Amino acid sequence: MDITPVLDQIDADLDNALDRLLELLRIQSISTDPAYADACQDAANWLVKDLASMGIAAEKRETPGHPMVVGHVEGEGPHVLFYGHYDVQPVDPLDLWDSPPFEPAIEDYNGAKVIRGRGSSDDKGQLMTFVEACRAWKSQHGTLPCKITFFFEGEEESGSPSLVPFMQENAEELKSDIALICDTGLFQSKTPAIITTLRGLLGQEVKIRAADKDLHSGMFGGVAMNPIRVLTKIVAGLHDDIGRVTLPGFYDGVPELDPEIAAQWEALNFDHDAFLGDVDLSVPAGEKGRSPLEMIWSQPTCEPNGIIGGYTGDGFKTVLPAEASLKISFRLVGNQDPIKIRESFQSYVRSMLPEDCSAEFINYGASGGSAMSTDHPAFEQARRALSDEWPEAAAFAGCGGSIPIAGHFKDILGTDAMLIGFAKDDDQIHSPNEKYDVESFHKGIRSWARILHAMTQ
Amino acid sequence: MDITPVLDQIDADLDNALDRLLELLRIQSISTDPAYADACQDAANWLVKDLASMGIAAEKRETPGHPMVVGHVEGEGPHVLFYGHYDVQPVDPLDLWDSPPFEPAIEDYNGAKVIRGRGSSDDKGQLMTFVEACRAWKSQHGTLPCKITFFFEGEEESGSPSLVPFMQENAEELKSDIALICDTGLFQSKTPAIITTLRGLLGQEVKIRAADKDLHSGMFGGVAMNPIRVLTKIVAGLHDDIGRVTLPGFYDGVPELDPEIAAQWEALNFDHDAFLGDVDLSVPAGEKGRSPLEMIWSQPTCEPNGIIGGYTGDGFKTVLPAEASLKISFRLVGNQDPIKIRESFQSYVRSMLPEDCSAEFINYGASGGSAMSTDHPAFEQARRALSDEWPEAAAFAGCGGSIPIAGHFKDILGTDAMLIGFAKDDDQIHSPNEKYDVESFHKGIRSWARILHAMTQ
Repeated sequence: MDITPVLDQIDADLDNALDRLLELLRIQSISTDPAYADACQDAANWLVKDLASMGIAAEKRETPGHPMVVGHVEGEGPHVLFYGHYDVQPVDPLDLWDSPPFEPAIEDYNGAKVIRGRGSSDDKGQLMTFVEACRAWKSQHGTLPCKITFFFEGEEESGSPSLVPFMQENAEELKSDIALICDTGLFQSKTPAIITTLRGLLGQEVKIRAADKDLHSGMFGGVAMNPIRVLTKIVAGLHDDIGRVTLPGFYDGVPELDPEIAAQWEALNFDHDAFLGDVDLSVPAGEKGRSPLEMIWSQPTCEPNGIIGGYTGDGFKTVLPAEASLKISFRLVGNQDPIKIRESFQSYVRSMLPEDCSAEFINYGASGGSAMSTDHPAFEQARRALSDEWPEAAAFAGCGGSIPIAGHFKDILGTDAMLIGFAKDDDQIHSPNEKYDVESFHKGIRSWARILHAMTQ
Repeated sequence: MDITPVLDQIDADLDNALDRLLELLRIQSISTDPAYADACQDAANWLVKDLASMGIAAEKRETPGHPMVVGHVEGEGPHVLFYGHYDVQPVDPLDLWDSPPFEPAIEDYNGAKVIRGRGSSDDKGQLMTFVEACRAWKSQHGTLPCKITFFFEGEEESGSPSLVPFMQENAEELKSDIALICDTGLFQSKTPAIITTLRGLLGQEVKIRAADKDLHSGMFGGVAMNPIRVLTKIVAGLHDDIGRVTLPGFYDGVPELDPEIAAQWEALNFDHDAFLGDVDLSVPAGEKGRSPLEMIWSQPTCEPNGIIGGYTGDGFKTVLPAEASLKISFRLVGNQDPIKIRESFQSYVRSMLPEDCSAEFINYGASGGSAMSTDHPAFEQARRALSDEWPEAAAFAGCGGSIPIAGHFKDILGTDAMLIGFAKDDDQIHSPNEKYDVESFHKGIRSWARILHAMTQ
């Protein structure tokens, strides 16, 4: 089948594609907050309906959490599964958004057109690049270039609790020759990337309690245990002076970086100064002696993501709080065992508790790091297709983020996963004013059309 | 003038006195939160009107913050000034209140009648013990037993920013032979106390900033500085292993405890186990080798009162926050210099800042500790009067709280201050479910009637 009319159709239909994306972005599908459960249903319904409008039979599949959307199109050639997620991050702090997060719009930004709004980049905009590529194929050829399974989830931003059980229960249905995942970024702004390593993610919350009520710091200060003091001491002890994590056994399973891969990364000429400068930083904060790219792509982390205790409103209150709590996450690499690290963290916390204090743990998702095997021919086909579309040749790269599904495809379904995405570093995903470049969206759609074409030649 | 009819009138009028207090408690005069500025005006107006109803001319006096209430009654004998505050603490966490904080009621609690509601003990209930004593005197004798100045402020819970300027500007008007302050507690539950030492209070907020926006912990984790890590390290470094504060110069001006005072305190047979046990604690958390009473009455503290940073809502968000902030206060004793300690804290914080991080400081009130001179005859007169009213003899005691006005009376007006109050340790001041025993209120009114009588014999 000819690719040219497909690409032409993508160009001609871009405004309509943007309108469709804006519709999806208006749905407030924040998965982590139970208040938005209905909106997650709405987003799933929207996707089912959109696929149906292209003549693709898909259905919403309920889970104990938010639903999956699964659709199948029969065809010749390899069987490809495409994965994306329709849920989005919370929007706070709301006052830092320049426009309401769920009233998306096309704006001018730094000389480019961007799609502004929560989820524009992570991951609704990226998910729709693949859907729009399929729409263009269908419109020109009446069919897709190969057998395709669409698989969308709505819990990626809240640890994907239903994903593994769903994949296990529906393993036969979800098996394919290769899984395509669009939830990653360009390598710097003009170089497309195929991600070959991902960090895992372990999420943990801990609440430290002392007295059974908030106390007056005049009446009890100096004598009653202050949970903020206990908690800050716990957090402060997690890193040593050179930035390494102190938890016993934490580095078990962290591989030394392969010199060949190190050389390949070095050749990318990553602009470390610009990377930090873009967010008003200048000094890499991590372990001494490793480059930022090496830190992000190959080293584990331990980072507090939220802390709260005592009075945090306007003005001052001389309270000794009864409780202080912490949300903390670990990015994992190689063969680090998330379960062992969770245990190590919890015993460390318990070892730091003075008498009279207790710790309550809330466990969030736990997934290890993953490394893709690039032996599958699709990797080289995709690299060439991406290089045709973009001004710079595509790179094999690492990724500091965690997309546990990549590992699940391998472990549960035995399928290799190929991660290709078009987000930019300044997309402000997970932050106020999230955006997605119209160029990312447009060339992203064209990229998928080319990749499907390349895989079926 | 005879005391007996005054005490009888107090007993007969108790229900009405309680109704008046409930009226005052309904006014939401939270001074630290600008949203309640009108309520602070309402509380001041209420007091002016209540004094007027007794034939006492008082007026609301505006300040740059919340107003003062000042009234004068001429008379024979010593000139007494009475101070109390009509503002109250914030009410959060609201969900821990068993009934709405500003819908006060008389309740049964642990076998006693209590007045439940924000400010019932701190300080509206206590303030009204003196007002009601004066009302009873007026009703029986048509006059008060001596010359009295009423002086109420509305900013005590927010650091009293207008107090010193107001006292300086109105020094002649506010000078008296002795100042009476009702903002302290009984020594344990049946022993009245006259407070002779108070700790000072220094309040400080600090915001640590790193990147110019919240970051994704996958994309930047390990490389971008995390302000929660910086802040927790700062807090963790404030105390050494034996619980002493590490700030340079912090202990300058902290006196060794006078063995005579130590012996006097020892003789009080303070029940340290019950004190901690009441709030579900068992181990004194402070500096090793000092008794809890000694810690609270004679040693300085450094306690975080609030900390916040990153995502603190339901669920999990893998954010590296741009900012984390801390509210911290220091209780000061002897001749510790609050200004020098503020400087020492701020330079310590700056010394702990990695490159790329900045600190913003917000200064709250700063007052040193104070020690009353008990040479004034009123101290012995009050001790006897209190011993007549209560089942146990009155004690000279210390206080861990901070009532800077006691020092201001001495420094600005040259007046000794005598602190007598009827709060109990379980009043939960500054906490949810604040209460004041009806017995404290009733015997408190009777105590003031007796003290005024004793001072004018």
